[in-house]
Formats: sequence, structure tokens, C-alpha cells
Amino acid sequence: MHVNELATPALVIDADAFDRNLATMASHHPGDRLRPHVKAHKCTALAAAQQAVGHSTFTCATPLEVVGMGRAGVGVDLLLANETVDAGRLRAMAELDVMVTVAVDSAETIRAAADNGIGSCLIDVNVGLPRCGVAPERAGSLADDARAAGLEVRGVMGYEGHLMMVPERGDRLAQVEASMALLRQAHADVGGDIVSAGGTGTFDLHGNTGVNEVQAGSYALMDTHYGQQGLPFEQALFVVGTVISVSDGWAVTDVGLKALGMDHGNPSIVDGDVWFCSDEHLTYAPHTSVSVGDRATVIPGHVDPTMAMHEAAWLVRDDEVIDRWPIDLRGW
Amino acid sequence: MHVNELATPALVIDADAFDRNLATMASHHPGDRLRPHVKAHKCTALAAAQQAVGHSTFTCATPLEVVGMGRAGVGVDLLLANETVDAGRLRAMAELDVMVTVAVDSAETIRAAADNGIGSCLIDVNVGLPRCGVAPERAGSLADDARAAGLEVRGVMGYEGHLMMVPERGDRLAQVEASMALLRQAHADVGGDIVSAGGTGTFDLHGNTGVNEVQAGSYALMDTHYGQQGLPFEQALFVVGTVISVSDGWAVTDVGLKALGMDHGNPSIVDGDVWFCSDEHLTYAPHTSVSVGDRATVIPGHVDPTMAMHEAAWLVRDDEVIDRWPIDLRGW
Repeated sequence: MHVNELATPALVIDADAFDRNLATMASHHPGDRLRPHVKAHKCTALAAAQQAVGHSTFTCATPLEVVGMGRAGVGVDLLLANETVDAGRLRAMAELDVMVTVAVDSAETIRAAADNGIGSCLIDVNVGLPRCGVAPERAGSLADDARAAGLEVRGVMGYEGHLMMVPERGDRLAQVEASMALLRQAHADVGGDIVSAGGTGTFDLHGNTGVNEVQAGSYALMDTHYGQQGLPFEQALFVVGTVISVSDGWAVTDVGLKALGMDHGNPSIVDGDVWFCSDEHLTYAPHTSVSVGDRATVIPGHVDPTMAMHEAAWLVRDDEVIDRWPIDLRGW
Repeated sequence: MHVNELATPALVIDADAFDRNLATMASHHPGDRLRPHVKAHKCTALAAAQQAVGHSTFTCATPLEVVGMGRAGVGVDLLLANETVDAGRLRAMAELDVMVTVAVDSAETIRAAADNGIGSCLIDVNVGLPRCGVAPERAGSLADDARAAGLEVRGVMGYEGHLMMVPERGDRLAQVEASMALLRQAHADVGGDIVSAGGTGTFDLHGNTGVNEVQAGSYALMDTHYGQQGLPFEQALFVVGTVISVSDGWAVTDVGLKALGMDHGNPSIVDGDVWFCSDEHLTYAPHTSVSVGDRATVIPGHVDPTMAMHEAAWLVRDDEVIDRWPIDLRGW
């Protein structure tokens, strides 16, 4: 099927760009040095492609992502890099035939994990982003509590999400190293083999941080937000639309804000300037003449929520659709 | 089931507030004076509740919404208030056992409708919002083209979406009346019985505009955006979360940006101040002490995309869950 036969809006992955992104990252962080983050794509088929280039440990943000990966048989070591006290979801993860580790940062999350069959945890450490994570100086005692509750403590994690978009690389490196000094301090008190951190924006800044696995996810598909950062990854994700209306000075395509993660603002559009998005419309000024029925190519501002809005992505090479990948890890 | 037993994030509808919103609107625009917009909720069960208070004509934004409503047997007259040239989707709408009308604004959309079995249309008129819609002075000749192609032309529609949020009511009224003068001009040239326009923000400003049906949708559930406008509708939609982490000065709940339409900015939270949203987290400063495991109540900024992110909504009265409504019209 030609890409222009897809019903729109259609989530399209450029297979060549995607393959190059996976190769670039696997070269920098081979095997278990990368723990790819599933939240960026919510797609077991895409995760299987990451596994095919050597990564067999994965990061998840929701129990459903863990359970879906486990049931699909993708990955041998799944980390829920997030806190939950949901007993039913913890039990569902514990019942999988794969190693599951959860992040904990409190007495409540330790107790919930231990009470519901989870065997191992990482101590989630606050390294500067005001979100989850225990203060570094309390990590050691929390690890003691976890071991007392019967959990294996495999190490620490700390997400420096507040540093992903520091514009200048030198500044970014210095701030990452300062942030990771907090994680090393916690790790000295906690023990265990794993020091897990990082993301696409800081993937190559961990040479001297002590971090031994990086949790990047967006690198595989990219978005306009990370596209500003001069990273060695290409835009591989597009939302293809149909031009449904043309007026004097603007056109409208059927890629609206229900097909796009909007938290980073408007998307971009190839050969045009975006004016605004409505639920099911994108109004833009085309750079060249367009007609009703033409195709338009939209580049999302934020890959993660964009993926979560679609049932499936279409893998395309040389304008031919070569596969349909269900976005099968949506929800919680 | 008690509302606190729901797995989170949970989309919750306050049944009493919802019922009052429907009654308020049905009192102002009884029966077919309102053509409720399905895009605001994408839920046939909710549409059936709108039908139960007297509305049997509906507005849709996507072919899937039309087809889903038709197959569910909700509504007797379904309007696709949007343009499409998708032959397969037009045929699927034409095959329904219910009257289907589509908006057209070009030769291409007329031809696509006529070629694929659609029987009737409205001429979509640009009344000031730069999106779809033909220029008012061209509406009459486009209606001639539609009739020549074999379509029944039932009238005109024009969405004054650029005026929904004009802050002062007097200003809003004056601008709506000027905008609707364009629609009346087009209607004089087009003919037909229907003059369709309006939304929740302008629902009560059409007394002198000639508009004979209003397309409001958000009124049923509301959001913080429309909540600023002093409208007589109550907030009836919430996303309930669980507190998963508490630090010195902030807490985190599991209602992230994948559970919330973010195009209007951050949501609000009951008894707290929102700092920021991540994919699966909302960091906020609680006004009172909270503990891990407590519930948190988030109020979305934009109802339409929020609904589209969830599989189902839970109808709740006096903290008891009384029904589960699938969001069955997601997608295109």
C-alpha cells in the first residue's frame, strides 16, 4: 500500500530514519547500557525492534506498560520507573514470567510492593526535578526499610528531567554532573548494581557520572522539542493529514489536537507555517499552492503523548507501507 | 463501588452536576434548537442522556463519530460539521439507517459526498474563524453546485469559534451578531431550513442572529477554560488520581499529561496549586497535608481532548459509582 492510501490522520514512522536512530544509540550505549523507555512509544512492536539491536532491559512508566511488555514477551528485565500503591496492578506485574523491578521512594510504596509479590526495587532519588524521589540523604535508610520488608534493592535511579532542555551543551554537561553527584552519594548509601538515569537530551553526558544505564526513549522517533537540541537523531515520526479546505491565505488539514501531544505547543508542518490547532483541524499557511485532497505532513511537538493518541503507527519505507504497529500499551 | 476504589487516573462525571447542566441547556434550547456536539465527549451513552432530555439531532466532528452514533441508534439526524474527501468513510456514513448530512465548502467536498452516496449537505460558511468554510459571498453559487451534483442543500452552518472566549459578555454579543450577519447573508443566497452555529461560549447570544440550532457540546461536562466565562454550567468532569509521592513542599499524583488535554495549558487541582505535568505525573503544592495513597481531584483545562484520552468515564453520585460509560467514539 502506498502511504497516500492511508486514512488520515495517520501516524507514520519513517523506517530508514528509525533504523538509523536505533543504530546510533546502540553504538553509543550497546546492550544493557541502554534501558529504553517504553513510555515514549507504548508499542511492543517498536520495543521488539529495540530488542533486536541488543537492548533487553526496558523502562516503563505505567503498570500497563510493564504488563503488556511482559505478556508480549519483549524484554527480560522490566523496570517500572514510577511509584504505585495500586495492589491489583502490582500483583499483575508480579505474576509475569519476567523480572520486574519497581521504583520506591516512601514507606507506603515499599509496603505496597512487598505486600503484592514484587521481588525487587530501585530507590528513586530526587536529583533536582521536583517530582518523585527521596532526598539523597534519606536513600540509604529507605533501602534498609526495603530490605527489611523483603525486597531486593538493585540500586538507585534518578531522573534529571529538569536538565533535558538546557540549551548549551557545556552548561548541560556541568549541571548533569552536579545532579548525578547526588545520585552517586545516594548509591554509596544504598548499594546494588544499578545506577539508572538519563534521557534522550542527556544520553551522551554520562561518561563520568557513574550512571551505568540510560533510560532514553524519545531518541527512536524524535519530536520538534528534542529536535532543537542538536542531537544525532533524526525526525522519524510524522502525522500525515489530508488537506480538507483551502482559503485565500490558508489551508486546513485534518490533523488536530486530538492527534497531537500539545503540551509543548503547536506542531510544525512541512512546507508551511502552523497558525493554530483545533480538535480536528490544523490551520496553516502553505508555502506552495495546495489543493483539497493533497497530503500534509505534520511533525509533533512531543512524541510521547502523540503516540498515546493513536491506535496504530504505520511503518513506511520509500513511500510504501511495510507494517502496522499497534500502539498496544495505551492506558494505565 | 465507592469512587475511591477506582483505579487511577479515573475519568469521573459528577452525575448531579451533569444532570443540572443538561436541564439548564434543554430549558434554554429545547429539542432540536440544540444540536449537541458529540466531539466534546465522544460517548454514545452520554449522547443518549442528551437524547433523553429531548435532543435528537447531533453534531459530529469525525466520520467515526457519525458512524458510531448511527450504529448505536442514538439520534435521528446526524451532521458531520466538518469536511472530508475520504471515500470509504463517506460511504460508511451513507450506509447508516439514519439521516446523515455533511458540511461542504468546495467543489472537491461536494463531489466526494455526491460520489459516495451522501444525500444532503450544509454549506459551511466562513464567519471569521480562519478554518474551513466558504466566503459568504460564494455560498450561493456553491449551493447551486451542490444541488447540480444531486445533493439536497439543507441550509448553512458557520462556527464563530474565534468569539467563544471574548471575555466581556456585551463585547461577545456584539461580535457574535456581526459574525452571524455574514451567515444570514449566505443563508439568503443558499436557502434551506437550517442555520446552524454557536457553541457553549455563545449559547445564549443567538436570540437575534437568525441561528435556529446551536452546536454546543462542552456545556454538559465543562472545563477550566469555559469555567472562566460565567456560564450557567457547572464543572461535572474530573480526573481522579492517587497521590504517589510526597516531598517537602510538593506532592505528586498520577494524573499526567497523557490523561489530560493540555492545549489550554495546565489543569487545576482541588485543594492545591499545580506546578507542572509530566507524562504520568502532576506535581503540585497541596493546601493541606496529604499522604501517599490519598486521592486527588484534577479539573481538566479542555474537556474534548481529555475525554479522547480515556477508554471510559465513570458516572458517580454521592461517591458511589453508578455507571461506566465507554468513550466509544475515539479516533477517526
